[in-house]
Amino acid sequence: MPEGKVEPRLPRGMRDILPDAMIRRDYVMGVIRRVFEEFGFEPLQTPAIELEETLLGKYGPDAERLIYSVGHSGGKERLCLRYDLSVPLCRLVAQYPELNRPFKRYQIAPVWRAERPQKGRYREFYQCDADIVGSASMLADAETLNVIYDILTRLGFRQFVIHLNDRKLLSGIGQYAGVADEQLGGLYRAIDKLSRIGLEGVEAELRRTGIPDEVVRRLLELLHIQGANREVLARLKGLLADYPVAMAGLAELEEIVGYLQALGIPERCYQIVPTMVRGLDYYTGPIYETVVEEPKIGSITGGGRYDNLVGMFLARSLPATGTTIGIERIMDVMEELEMFPPQVGRTVAQVLVTRFAPALVEESLRLARDLRRAGLNVELYFEDDPLGTQIRYALKKGIPYLAIIGPDEVATGQVALRHLALGEQVTVPRDGAVAQLQAWRQLL
Amino acid sequence: MPEGKVEPRLPRGMRDILPDAMIRRDYVMGVIRRVFEEFGFEPLQTPAIELEETLLGKYGPDAERLIYSVGHSGGKERLCLRYDLSVPLCRLVAQYPELNRPFKRYQIAPVWRAERPQKGRYREFYQCDADIVGSASMLADAETLNVIYDILTRLGFRQFVIHLNDRKLLSGIGQYAGVADEQLGGLYRAIDKLSRIGLEGVEAELRRTGIPDEVVRRLLELLHIQGANREVLARLKGLLADYPVAMAGLAELEEIVGYLQALGIPERCYQIVPTMVRGLDYYTGPIYETVVEEPKIGSITGGGRYDNLVGMFLARSLPATGTTIGIERIMDVMEELEMFPPQVGRTVAQVLVTRFAPALVEESLRLARDLRRAGLNVELYFEDDPLGTQIRYALKKGIPYLAIIGPDEVATGQVALRHLALGEQVTVPRDGAVAQLQAWRQLL
Repeated sequence: MPEGKVEPRLPRGMRDILPDAMIRRDYVMGVIRRVFEEFGFEPLQTPAIELEETLLGKYGPDAERLIYSVGHSGGKERLCLRYDLSVPLCRLVAQYPELNRPFKRYQIAPVWRAERPQKGRYREFYQCDADIVGSASMLADAETLNVIYDILTRLGFRQFVIHLNDRKLLSGIGQYAGVADEQLGGLYRAIDKLSRIGLEGVEAELRRTGIPDEVVRRLLELLHIQGANREVLARLKGLLADYPVAMAGLAELEEIVGYLQALGIPERCYQIVPTMVRGLDYYTGPIYETVVEEPKIGSITGGGRYDNLVGMFLARSLPATGTTIGIERIMDVMEELEMFPPQVGRTVAQVLVTRFAPALVEESLRLARDLRRAGLNVELYFEDDPLGTQIRYALKKGIPYLAIIGPDEVATGQVALRHLALGEQVTVPRDGAVAQLQAWRQLL
Repeated sequence: MPEGKVEPRLPRGMRDILPDAMIRRDYVMGVIRRVFEEFGFEPLQTPAIELEETLLGKYGPDAERLIYSVGHSGGKERLCLRYDLSVPLCRLVAQYPELNRPFKRYQIAPVWRAERPQKGRYREFYQCDADIVGSASMLADAETLNVIYDILTRLGFRQFVIHLNDRKLLSGIGQYAGVADEQLGGLYRAIDKLSRIGLEGVEAELRRTGIPDEVVRRLLELLHIQGANREVLARLKGLLADYPVAMAGLAELEEIVGYLQALGIPERCYQIVPTMVRGLDYYTGPIYETVVEEPKIGSITGGGRYDNLVGMFLARSLPATGTTIGIERIMDVMEELEMFPPQVGRTVAQVLVTRFAPALVEESLRLARDLRRAGLNVELYFEDDPLGTQIRYALKKGIPYLAIIGPDEVATGQVALRHLALGEQVTVPRDGAVAQLQAWRQLL
């Protein structure tokens, strides 16, 4: 071993997640995973490393610059770290034609992007994706929205709105306004800025893009439409009746809204927003993102239908739809608002079994074993320290209960249990310890 | 989007884990995680990418050649993918002096090694590590062994032996045999081959290493010692009484064996094996690995005490001990022997809710919602296909139960439930569906 010490530090943009934060993160991921599985999404794992040819040409040049390259001694392949979970999914679906369709999978895994690090933005972060490949049915989109609603509700979010739009509707709006196809990208980008720069800002932006005044006027009329979902749909249908692609998009949205109503999802939780665009090129139908209004933190889920992406790896196209749950931003909000239930503690250990003199250590070992067999998480204190030191350790670490076994307890077949927050201590028979601890846990 | 298709494929040595395998993998990881938490190990996450200086000089030159390097456009740092979870742990413990000690953490995460791919060996694989940093107590080692015992037992392994040895004992054996310090490495490597090349092979190997015949004779005498743990300890103590470092190692093993006996762990499950060496340089005290004897697949856990490794990042040394659970090999064995409990199915969905004509789709949506609210995993059939097609889909996918809601059921407020394996169908009131499905699940 070399003599020189190495300074312990991380690369730029990387982070460690220490246990107390990780416990809360595992709780949130557990809720997400649970809901995904309730809807029949299946777990999937793809490797972190993909061939460069798999990733290139999918995300656009700005994104591609952020992809990490990977190499090893003697390696001849051009390798990358994955940038998202969608492109690997499309690669996989094309690679295994034997998969059941629709192929419903979820994947909760890190992705890597060499973005400029800033507060709350890291170069390694997790994505939680649920996608359905092989169904063109709007039921697949409605269920995806139901997944989002169930996850956010179960995590305790109350003030959120899922914004809905449709790429077909956007194309139709472009036609209606008379925007040439090659200007559609500029149109989308201008509209996308609405929430940041307001209607006048968009108006100025559109004029700068070279879109004629008359077109801008017609567009703003459309973008002004607000109201209940059925009302927005009705007004858009009236204005766009002559544009089949717009009507196709409106029919998709109408079908989805009908399903959400049938499911009893409150109207205040989803809203048709004709100005919502979503950045990625590959969407083809309904698109959705969830905006949390209290606190105002922007979008925490994003997704939509991308019927052509699998076709980049396959002779024919396959319809697909899905969503990403933005776990990192959700974690930030939940930390800020302290939205975690009380049983999600600072430590996994529920009980500290203390130890007495060396002669009694085996009693402590057996007590710890018995409590664990009853399903409790138990830490055994290792060192031969005074009881006071052991109690301070439990307090510092946030372990809620102590189980104390000394000579008196051994002699009488008992154990002393202490509830540290209440400062309450009881002595019970050994075989009554689990019941007492579980009773305390119920109080939480 | 480019016109050219990309062939969907993976880099060499990488693999996808498809849902049916992933479900079993999640089950095994769930058991491992559960036991880790029962023992008070806390979850931790470190990034996949570490600085090169953090990893270099830790694993030896053969291993270092297998480390992946990572880069990005404009990046100036020298970056690597992690090779294991132990070195990042030591880096972390040195970096955050505020962590509670002992610091007990587990981490279940992929590592990357550019080894030559072969059957069952991949360049990305998972490690499941539990470590205790900051305690020199043999209780920490005993609990680590208890973790291994509980995990393997709970997974259904019956024929396994945890081999125990101690690096101090091995040093003492070297002294006893008169092997010079600089020959100790060669001695360890020769002994390590015992199970593959037999005693004669080791004898020849030792002679080739330049160790004198007299020394080889004395060594083989020691290596011949077999029997019950207490007996092996007694005989070694008799032979090595003059070598304090050996006696220190034997005292450690004796203390550990005492704790395992107190815990009631069967003697057949652990065995002192003075010839067990373990490859890594950094071990300093007790070392352990678990050998599965039926089927004969070699070691599925490995670990031990490494009291100096944290010191490579810190001004002072910190005692540490821990184990890796070899999830990949465990998965191979469990797949081969079909060791999974019946509730671990081929798919996460427990119920397929079929759909009838479009007019009744909303009834199916609501039924799916109600079953999910009761905690069942439910897939909704999306397409407007005949019932026979929907049934064949459930059979192919391995979904055990169907919930059928057609015009008759809607009219009477009922639902038809079919148990596909039994070919049994019952019609029950809507609010009795969950009870019937749960009753079927109990039969598993």
